[in-house]
Amino acid sequence: MNIHSHLYAIILAGGSGTRFWPLSRELYPKQLLHILGDQTLIQQTLKRTLSCVPTSRTFIVTNRSQADMLSLQLGEWKRDIRKHIIVEPEGRNTAPAIAMAAVKLVAQDPDAVMLVLPADHVIKGTRKFTEAVKFGTTLAGDGHLVTLGIRPTVPETGYGYIKPNMRQQLGTQGALKGYRVRQFLEKPDRAKAKTMLRSGGYFWNSGIFLWKASTILDELSLYQPGLLRVIRKLCRLQDDGAGFTDNAMRMYGRLSSMPIDTAVMEQTSKAVVVPVDFGWSDIGSWSALGDVASKTKAGNVINGNIIDLGSENSVLFGNHRLVATIGLKDMVLVDTPDATLVCPKSRAQDVKGIVDILKKRKAPERVEHQTVFRPWGSYTTLDDGAGYKVKRLTVRPGAKLSLQRHRRRREHWVVVRGKAKVIRGDQRLELTIGQSLDIPQAINHRIENPWSETLEIIEVQHGSYLGEDDIVRLQDIYGREVRS
Amino acid sequence: MNIHSHLYAIILAGGSGTRFWPLSRELYPKQLLHILGDQTLIQQTLKRTLSCVPTSRTFIVTNRSQADMLSLQLGEWKRDIRKHIIVEPEGRNTAPAIAMAAVKLVAQDPDAVMLVLPADHVIKGTRKFTEAVKFGTTLAGDGHLVTLGIRPTVPETGYGYIKPNMRQQLGTQGALKGYRVRQFLEKPDRAKAKTMLRSGGYFWNSGIFLWKASTILDELSLYQPGLLRVIRKLCRLQDDGAGFTDNAMRMYGRLSSMPIDTAVMEQTSKAVVVPVDFGWSDIGSWSALGDVASKTKAGNVINGNIIDLGSENSVLFGNHRLVATIGLKDMVLVDTPDATLVCPKSRAQDVKGIVDILKKRKAPERVEHQTVFRPWGSYTTLDDGAGYKVKRLTVRPGAKLSLQRHRRRREHWVVVRGKAKVIRGDQRLELTIGQSLDIPQAINHRIENPWSETLEIIEVQHGSYLGEDDIVRLQDIYGREVRS
Repeated sequence: MNIHSHLYAIILAGGSGTRFWPLSRELYPKQLLHILGDQTLIQQTLKRTLSCVPTSRTFIVTNRSQADMLSLQLGEWKRDIRKHIIVEPEGRNTAPAIAMAAVKLVAQDPDAVMLVLPADHVIKGTRKFTEAVKFGTTLAGDGHLVTLGIRPTVPETGYGYIKPNMRQQLGTQGALKGYRVRQFLEKPDRAKAKTMLRSGGYFWNSGIFLWKASTILDELSLYQPGLLRVIRKLCRLQDDGAGFTDNAMRMYGRLSSMPIDTAVMEQTSKAVVVPVDFGWSDIGSWSALGDVASKTKAGNVINGNIIDLGSENSVLFGNHRLVATIGLKDMVLVDTPDATLVCPKSRAQDVKGIVDILKKRKAPERVEHQTVFRPWGSYTTLDDGAGYKVKRLTVRPGAKLSLQRHRRRREHWVVVRGKAKVIRGDQRLELTIGQSLDIPQAINHRIENPWSETLEIIEVQHGSYLGEDDIVRLQDIYGREVRS
Repeated sequence: MNIHSHLYAIILAGGSGTRFWPLSRELYPKQLLHILGDQTLIQQTLKRTLSCVPTSRTFIVTNRSQADMLSLQLGEWKRDIRKHIIVEPEGRNTAPAIAMAAVKLVAQDPDAVMLVLPADHVIKGTRKFTEAVKFGTTLAGDGHLVTLGIRPTVPETGYGYIKPNMRQQLGTQGALKGYRVRQFLEKPDRAKAKTMLRSGGYFWNSGIFLWKASTILDELSLYQPGLLRVIRKLCRLQDDGAGFTDNAMRMYGRLSSMPIDTAVMEQTSKAVVVPVDFGWSDIGSWSALGDVASKTKAGNVINGNIIDLGSENSVLFGNHRLVATIGLKDMVLVDTPDATLVCPKSRAQDVKGIVDILKKRKAPERVEHQTVFRPWGSYTTLDDGAGYKVKRLTVRPGAKLSLQRHRRRREHWVVVRGKAKVIRGDQRLELTIGQSLDIPQAINHRIENPWSETLEIIEVQHGSYLGEDDIVRLQDIYGREVRS
């Protein structure tokens, strides 16, 4: 569908992977997870967005550490969208990301209208969503900064609230109306949230915005001139085709993390809210999953290899490992191969505290999973002992690892599924199931799977140092950095 | 110490590994676990027993599937005790085990007095325990069936109760007194348990008994003549040095599972109870562990890689895997590499229901751990895919696997620690770290570690069938069955 020929979708796909830990990790945040249905949240968001905007005008802002994984999930849309992925050097909340997208857009289309939306929300009513976007686009065209507001149903303390000026209606389309915003209110305490819920006339800030690129740039130059200056400079550097220089990266890293809400929306006089009702949730925590996922009779959300006796109203999210639960009430249990979380639903937000501790400990369980995805497939660490490590490499059909060598480890490969085409030094080899090969230190090597069956290899590494950073890449088909 | 030259200790070390699942498994029941302190419960029990009886008169009754693992845990006592391990074909509760021990003992010492005690109880006061045994031995010598009774502290529904006849005191020694038993009461309901606790004059049946072997045999022949007949026949078969014949195994398997309590104690007129006070617990469930283990200020028992925020009065029993807990109250969490249990303390007994489900599903998580112990060391299953399996074999210094072959799988070995002496067909090889070897189907092979460092091998198996039972043993130094 094509609501408006100057409408562009800007999907914000960053995130720190904190609130859905241990299923989410820093390199694997919420939008990349299968937590509701067959598609990941980013895939659901993309599908929904495409009901308003064609792929040719759909952009995704993400950061460097998540870009590979995101790209893998684009599936059928990959060809059209991959050139529209805007990669931040690192996540700095929404204001810098939106500013960067606006600068780029206005350069290619001065009349561009931006539909800004987070990649990890759930919206049940796509038709209603499309109507709201259509109406919002009209208001945005008139120079307003439009935010979609959600009617509160519980005294939620995790969202910002918006108080519209009900006397200043700016338009109407079907059941939809736009109002000037009287006030943005930061996340309230429980008492305040209850009062607002009772009195009515307040809306949750959904984080979905519509505005002209030129309007938001005007407001940014008014309220955040310093930020905008840095972003313009960065975009110029990038337009030179040189990617981010070290200097540019440092500049971006020095920007403060700032949401567009405090950067602009709370200060501008152009804010307009359109109350909407399309079954929205930002599933901001494991306990919120209980509100949107399908449940058993006893009110449980159950996933994976769970044996339960008599639990109620709980989120029990497992995987292949066996988890047995008995008589849990209003609890959250999340199990992954290398980490498990258990807490009452009421404490689900406090998983942040766990992630903070893991950060201090530099624990790998914060950053990545036991299975790590790569453009060519994935690897899973099976064992990690003194002086050795065992991994299973899964190489997708048609994929090819980089031509590489290691300074401090040697490797031994055993093919357990499919067939491998291998380069070792100046040898070209093929290995079938059960065949094995030694890769000495410092010898160039490469694995390729040109066939249609997935290739699996058990790799046993030996050496004094087995870190992932002991790799010299010489060639790579996925554009990863190689030794020049 | 040597209380009495005819006193023999009979340690009952069977158990189904249900109540402490997932840490306990069928092949790895409670007495073999490190749940309290550095020593396993059987090791603690042995040490305590040796304060009353020398190793030369200490016997352990166990069943075939647990005997190997038990033997490994005997450590310094192994040489003395290994010949005293009485192996039941399979566990049939306490009456058959006690009958078998009594038949064997009376044959070698007609005046034998038996101290019968479970392998998996906790007793804090060893001195008081020794005194109670000394007093009980005197009473047993007079032809009584002595049971040690524990003064109830809570209205426990998991134990049998004993009501003594306080007018019939049979002796005294220091603070200890013996009374004729008026009545044995089966596990009561909560109301009944509360009444007994309040009225006083009732004692928990500890399951620790003292009697002459000849006395218990007299009573068995009176109340369980059928059982005793089978046991005598079995012992005769065993005395022929032939081990258990298939026929004997079947006979034993047909015996009903019967505790000595119902088989004899509830019926005999010779029962005497000695109330004791030596800090006893049978730690009958994960929640009971909270009563005997050392706790944090917040009342938690914490073990392993647990990150906790504000839990209280909970048992959090992990291992290497990361487990994060937030705000748990009166909960039990037990994590093992392949299975996790979470439940309120009040439901800890219901783990039985989980184990029943696993039994129906023939789930391996009921029977054994991801790491399986063998006389030569252990193996850990690292990965299990379609047509392949990856294991880490850990071979103790001086150990030697059986000479064996497989019909349906081939194996590939990579040494990752130590050095291996290998037989493959008619070859004799040595493999050092990083070296690998293929073992084709149907080829005899053997691994030996004659050196002082532990040997670790990564084994990749391939084939149409990868079950443990695809093994033909040709020679074995641990007395395991070989092909004749």
